[in-house]
Amino acid sequence: MSESCVFCRIIAGEIPGDFVHRDEEIVAFRDINPVASTHILLVPRDHIESVQSLLPEQADLVGRMVLRARELAEQEGIADRGYRLVVNCGSEGGQIVPHLHMHLIGGRKLDDRIG
Amino acid sequence: MSESCVFCRIIAGEIPGDFVHRDEEIVAFRDINPVASTHILLVPRDHIESVQSLLPEQADLVGRMVLRARELAEQEGIADRGYRLVVNCGSEGGQIVPHLHMHLIGGRKLDDRIG
Repeated sequence: MSESCVFCRIIAGEIPGDFVHRDEEIVAFRDINPVASTHILLVPRDHIESVQSLLPEQADLVGRMVLRARELAEQEGIADRGYRLVVNCGSEGGQIVPHLHMHLIGGRKLDDRIG
Repeated sequence: MSESCVFCRIIAGEIPGDFVHRDEEIVAFRDINPVASTHILLVPRDHIESVQSLLPEQADLVGRMVLRARELAEQEGIADRGYRLVVNCGSEGGQIVPHLHMHLIGGRKLDDRIG
């Protein structure tokens, strides 16, 4: 855990989070600035800074994040209509919190613009 | 391979593609309508329709797509500045070709809007 990381602090319960999923490896909570009716962040408990710092042996963790996102899309009732998964990496990518996370967004026809 | 799938046909060489990577499992080629100077599509050779049709045992394939995207970001010289990975799923998610693919975009400060 990184004391200065807002996601680590949410995971540790020091900052409140609107959790929709928690397991030993991955947690998911609603984005505080949602861009659509479903906007969930999937976050590994381990403080991995970004895709850039992912170890090769952590690749399957990312795969499990995607499968978990799909499960949450089903829970949210948007799986059939469709949704978007986004991982921002670094400054030009728009990553704000330096703790790897995947956005799950949906609930309306999303904008075709992705960047 | 699906005869009606444009990505399967690009992979098979029936439609030209500007490839930046090819291995036994994953190919990558430039998007024909790029939204930034780097806009690459990473596509599994297998015709998997979308995240919705991904089998649990294919989760690590998605992980390898992410690691490959990172490698391509390095090749493109945008790894340090940052980039975005996007997977659209289904109609409201903005998926146009029904063959699983991951967008790697970067080369400028991307728009904060992701949906």
